[in-house]
Amino acid sequence: MADDELRAITWEGDHVRLIDQTRLPGELVMLDIDEVDPLVDAIARLAVRGAPALGAAGALGVVVALRQAEREGWDDATRDAAITRVRDARPTAINLAWGVDRVLAQLPHGTEAVLADALALIREDEEANRALGRAGADWIQQRIPDRPIRVLTHCNTGMLATTAWGTALGIVRELATRDAIELVYVDETRPLLQGARLTAWELAEEGIAHRVQVDGAAASTILRGMVDVAIIGADRIAANGDTANKIGSVGVALACADAGVPFLVAAPASTVDPATRSGEEIEIEERAAEEVTFFASDRTAPEASPAFNPAFDVTPARLISAIVTEVGAETPAELAARLDAALTVPA
Amino acid sequence: MADDELRAITWEGDHVRLIDQTRLPGELVMLDIDEVDPLVDAIARLAVRGAPALGAAGALGVVVALRQAEREGWDDATRDAAITRVRDARPTAINLAWGVDRVLAQLPHGTEAVLADALALIREDEEANRALGRAGADWIQQRIPDRPIRVLTHCNTGMLATTAWGTALGIVRELATRDAIELVYVDETRPLLQGARLTAWELAEEGIAHRVQVDGAAASTILRGMVDVAIIGADRIAANGDTANKIGSVGVALACADAGVPFLVAAPASTVDPATRSGEEIEIEERAAEEVTFFASDRTAPEASPAFNPAFDVTPARLISAIVTEVGAETPAELAARLDAALTVPA
Repeated sequence: MADDELRAITWEGDHVRLIDQTRLPGELVMLDIDEVDPLVDAIARLAVRGAPALGAAGALGVVVALRQAEREGWDDATRDAAITRVRDARPTAINLAWGVDRVLAQLPHGTEAVLADALALIREDEEANRALGRAGADWIQQRIPDRPIRVLTHCNTGMLATTAWGTALGIVRELATRDAIELVYVDETRPLLQGARLTAWELAEEGIAHRVQVDGAAASTILRGMVDVAIIGADRIAANGDTANKIGSVGVALACADAGVPFLVAAPASTVDPATRSGEEIEIEERAAEEVTFFASDRTAPEASPAFNPAFDVTPARLISAIVTEVGAETPAELAARLDAALTVPA
Repeated sequence: MADDELRAITWEGDHVRLIDQTRLPGELVMLDIDEVDPLVDAIARLAVRGAPALGAAGALGVVVALRQAEREGWDDATRDAAITRVRDARPTAINLAWGVDRVLAQLPHGTEAVLADALALIREDEEANRALGRAGADWIQQRIPDRPIRVLTHCNTGMLATTAWGTALGIVRELATRDAIELVYVDETRPLLQGARLTAWELAEEGIAHRVQVDGAAASTILRGMVDVAIIGADRIAANGDTANKIGSVGVALACADAGVPFLVAAPASTVDPATRSGEEIEIEERAAEEVTFFASDRTAPEASPAFNPAFDVTPARLISAIVTEVGAETPAELAARLDAALTVPA
């Protein structure tokens, strides 16, 4: 890592620094945050988003809460309520709660121990991303060894969604370092346009060939034979491989299944939740109607028209070719078997 | 028809009157056009759109060209070139060329005969819409007789897309007159948002319950069991039933097939093109990148990012439960057999 490399979320000695992703691609604006309220707000309005980045935000959020509690003399109940607010700022994002819970285990050893564990979590995430990027690129090149790859991706899973490098987009970056990318189709990802705004921005910065398309084009692009592999991230992976991800993902998976195109899910292993047995147990966050009925300040639908705005969908395991984590690329059945073995064999 | 009923396209004695659909839902602006250039422009920029409305625009466009030729003393070559420009203003829309060609057959009988045939075409389109609306509603209620229907639709196929009543939305209107609509999920239909802007506007005007959703939500809404039937329009139906329609349609069809939900195509019989044997022969219009990379005046993607912007996709016949025209509701195989019989039996 170069010292000047841009990152979605970092710890700056006494506060969190975030890229305000709601301002991209127009402006690169940094947020410096040392209190719980603005951090919860930043998480809720998606200034920081993406499962692994939310893990880092949760972990550093505990540090922010502990330091604010010390500065302002909070009692334990106030402090714990603040930590809970960080943990619950986004209901579907398991990594947020995971980041909070992990570093809380260090609380008996003091704030500095919590901070050290949060920084370790961030380091480990980058290492996991680079490892899963290699594993995913290997999986793809084993199947298509002889020519550059045409990838389709949905939402943003790059540096902006993680602590560094990216998950699904980390595989794309790894393929690009191997000179093995022909073109990346970037679904714009309504309503918040993370694909058009963020993924396209990252790919343009890296000089990787890409084209932005509306989400409705994805199925057709796949059925017309223009895509070799679709790669998405994950907000939560159930024990059976069912995967919750940005709304629109399951439509990509259905088209891939119909066309015989591999559909990969890429995420750090922390995204797998053994306690969630299947996708039916995943709560689908419904977000504000205005995300659909407005675009920036322009109304797109009549005032009289309500909206339906689920943030996520669930892709059933039967539509997933492989789940790529730092453990490697596994079929959903292999993942489920590994989790079963881990549960039944003494550690 | 009430005299004051609003219509997408009418003939006003000596000129065409259009609703400028690019201004909805914010403003209801009428365009009065008596020359070829602004009519071609209106068609190309989608001020008037929807297959049947384009048939009427093509037919009335010939009248506009003939009258302008008479006023300005054009030679036959100039006149014919103007008619060809109307005919070619949208390449995928077979109804536009069909409307032009039909009324041109009256040219030997003079401009008034061409006008009379254009007005007959418009009357017949309304009658066809009402007939196919009844046929589609019957087909659905035969399968779900005992409760109100939850419909999903894509793009706009209502009064604004036709001369009156609508095709896919005509079936919804017919079900609503039977008090048999529970809810209509309206795909917003990026890039130009015909669903959010136009379909939602028509449904709000009619007081029919609806919710606008992003296109990426359609597959999930269907897979979650929230939809009884999806109904779309068609820009061209091939002889084997393959159907070209607004980008995003085939994704809806794939989700319906996966979930066992009926997928209906609704269009006037003139949309069926026996000369197009299958969807592979349908040229997919690619439109300007700025439709994807901008929203109104707001840039959504980086300047360095190119776009891929196919206007249509092709839904293979195997994914279509029934094609509903004024002839009735037919499976794609029944439609193909009827066309075969029409070609082999002397008329």
